[in-house]
Amino acid sequence: MSKLTGNAIVFTQGGPTAVINASWIGAVEVLMDAPEITGLWGSIHGIDGVLNEEFVDLRAQKKEVLEAITHTPATALGSTRHKPNDEDNKKMLEVFKKYNIRYVFGAGGNDTSESLDIINDAAKAIGYELRLFHISKTVDCDLMENDHTPGYASAARYIANAFRGVDLDNKAFGGVYLGVCMGRHAGFLTAASALGKRFADSGPHLVYVPEKPFDVKQFVLDVEKVYRKYNRCVIAVSEGIEDASHTPILQLLSKDKLEKDSHGNVQLSGTGALADALVAEIKKHLEGIGLVKKLRARGDTFGYLQRSFPDLSPVDREEALNVGRTAAKEALAGNFVDGSIAIQRVSTSPYQVKFVRVPLKAVAGKTRHLPAEHINAEGNNVTDAFIAWGKPLLGEVTEIGELDMSKRVKV
Amino acid sequence: MSKLTGNAIVFTQGGPTAVINASWIGAVEVLMDAPEITGLWGSIHGIDGVLNEEFVDLRAQKKEVLEAITHTPATALGSTRHKPNDEDNKKMLEVFKKYNIRYVFGAGGNDTSESLDIINDAAKAIGYELRLFHISKTVDCDLMENDHTPGYASAARYIANAFRGVDLDNKAFGGVYLGVCMGRHAGFLTAASALGKRFADSGPHLVYVPEKPFDVKQFVLDVEKVYRKYNRCVIAVSEGIEDASHTPILQLLSKDKLEKDSHGNVQLSGTGALADALVAEIKKHLEGIGLVKKLRARGDTFGYLQRSFPDLSPVDREEALNVGRTAAKEALAGNFVDGSIAIQRVSTSPYQVKFVRVPLKAVAGKTRHLPAEHINAEGNNVTDAFIAWGKPLLGEVTEIGELDMSKRVKV
Repeated sequence: MSKLTGNAIVFTQGGPTAVINASWIGAVEVLMDAPEITGLWGSIHGIDGVLNEEFVDLRAQKKEVLEAITHTPATALGSTRHKPNDEDNKKMLEVFKKYNIRYVFGAGGNDTSESLDIINDAAKAIGYELRLFHISKTVDCDLMENDHTPGYASAARYIANAFRGVDLDNKAFGGVYLGVCMGRHAGFLTAASALGKRFADSGPHLVYVPEKPFDVKQFVLDVEKVYRKYNRCVIAVSEGIEDASHTPILQLLSKDKLEKDSHGNVQLSGTGALADALVAEIKKHLEGIGLVKKLRARGDTFGYLQRSFPDLSPVDREEALNVGRTAAKEALAGNFVDGSIAIQRVSTSPYQVKFVRVPLKAVAGKTRHLPAEHINAEGNNVTDAFIAWGKPLLGEVTEIGELDMSKRVKV
Repeated sequence: MSKLTGNAIVFTQGGPTAVINASWIGAVEVLMDAPEITGLWGSIHGIDGVLNEEFVDLRAQKKEVLEAITHTPATALGSTRHKPNDEDNKKMLEVFKKYNIRYVFGAGGNDTSESLDIINDAAKAIGYELRLFHISKTVDCDLMENDHTPGYASAARYIANAFRGVDLDNKAFGGVYLGVCMGRHAGFLTAASALGKRFADSGPHLVYVPEKPFDVKQFVLDVEKVYRKYNRCVIAVSEGIEDASHTPILQLLSKDKLEKDSHGNVQLSGTGALADALVAEIKKHLEGIGLVKKLRARGDTFGYLQRSFPDLSPVDREEALNVGRTAAKEALAGNFVDGSIAIQRVSTSPYQVKFVRVPLKAVAGKTRHLPAEHINAEGNNVTDAFIAWGKPLLGEVTEIGELDMSKRVKV
């Protein structure tokens, strides 16, 4: 295939992650000195930058600043959740033509891969030559064809560390602690709560993911069982848990009117209502059966810190750079005119992955779920298989210790 | 003063911190080989371990485990919020006599120092010789005589990092983000939200602490002003903010019945209600005046991660060890029979502190507040003086970068 000369744009979309900057800068690294790339630009706020013709010159940036940005959470290019309609797609093609934009790299989740696929088809239909690549990204880890996605590992590291800390805090007093994790349809993030477990009685003792129907009655019985054993219970819950008829539990338990986002989904993040409601159910049950007179029960909603906390998994950062680099290399090589770059696992021990181009349509608009073998039969915890899969993603975590309480003083 | 021979107990009380283990292990380090310490024990769950005669032998623990525990958040000895009554105090003295306990080291906040003071007075009244020391501890930083307290710096590091991340996340989309921080009466933790600010437009743009009366009407006007300037606004709020008549804002805005703790205080942590209520007020105002049609506004409650996240400030850990070591050294030296060990600042640049014994009664049951010069005149932000004071406490934080957006592409 002959070389294609023109301008290149990179952009980022959807919920930011801790390493999405590493991804686009990985692509920029490779494109920086390529002679066929006449201009190397960042589109500001995703596709909105194309529609508004707002581009920042990436070759005019200082090298040390770009390096610092690879360690910086969220996205220095800005983001959008704008889902393009037919008119938007037409406008974008006009802008591509006007600016001779021939290379397009979009980092995002399944909504973004779908938008990219539609624009790509529209360009093909009018015979406008493009190299268009999707750079996988999402803390949710729910993209098809991927073992895991850039952004997931840093969020998982945060959640594993968070539960490691709050579990010790809960142990100091006893009682019940519940943490609500991000994850509308996929339980990968909530499952990560188990990756920091260190001791025989470590929490979380219960883990609930959206892949299994959630039953409030069974839930409080599960908590009761753990509480009888340990005099405490630490619980991780996905924000997206639903009952058997697919009604979100938040909707079921919340009296207030819920906000919907631009995709028509009920807003699950940015509210503490689910944690509060579930904690109230636990108190009602454990106090109601007389197991404890006044239960110490606390609920936290982990919120936006999960995807933005500036303590990156080193594994995640390196992989994010490599996904971006692979996209740029594939585009310059010209073996394919489009595709999505996925992370696939070669082996778990030693941990090894490869970065492969997969067809855009294999990823676009689809959702991957936590594999069945990662959830226990009761649907209230993860399996050892999940822990073996997830641990290598986090990078090193601080060693912690506990006293040998069997060494009691006898007088 | 002659040497006092007997058993020693250490215990921890109140809300755990990331470094309270470092404090009691600092004391244990010094006491480990002292010949006058016949037994070196940990009282399990604070004073409850004394009342229940439950002690763990600390000389029987492995050295490498104790070392690991100095990096471990929460407390390996367990905690309690039990405030002793007259009968408890009588019982404790009996246990001291029964076990020949002559050295007592209690790590805790102002409630603990008060309890220790009462037991100490009771021992003196009957002529029972004791060496009794309070080891300062609290994420709230609200102990008198201290520049700051062990535990504060790690919590401040977490909050500064958290706001650094969520501020970038907010910038990627625009809109309003509000984070509720711990702090019932003192604003030190919430003020720490400003310690990670890096760029000219970095948030938090508004910071509200309990030391200033909070007015909901003025608050939404403040947010409006920032929003008009940046098209976004990041806000840090103390859980303990009150109106001019000292009614907690949570109580003012919340329709639900609020739980009270064993000290009769309204439970502020472990619920997302304040963040949700304040976000609702902001939406009502900014949408009401027509500044934005549908505001993207999110609220997070930082919750228990603030005091338990396993990413310790190295400054905090070292100081916590030294507070514990100082308590043990003072007790062995015998210059004083009792006291509280405080951290006092020698200089800010270079950063230097000293560890000093202060009278127990100077700390017991009192609350220190954020100094007036650390809060701006409008009562909606911290001052540069606060930032200069707070920055040395955090240890090193990751460098972040931002694009030079003035380098726009012009065609």
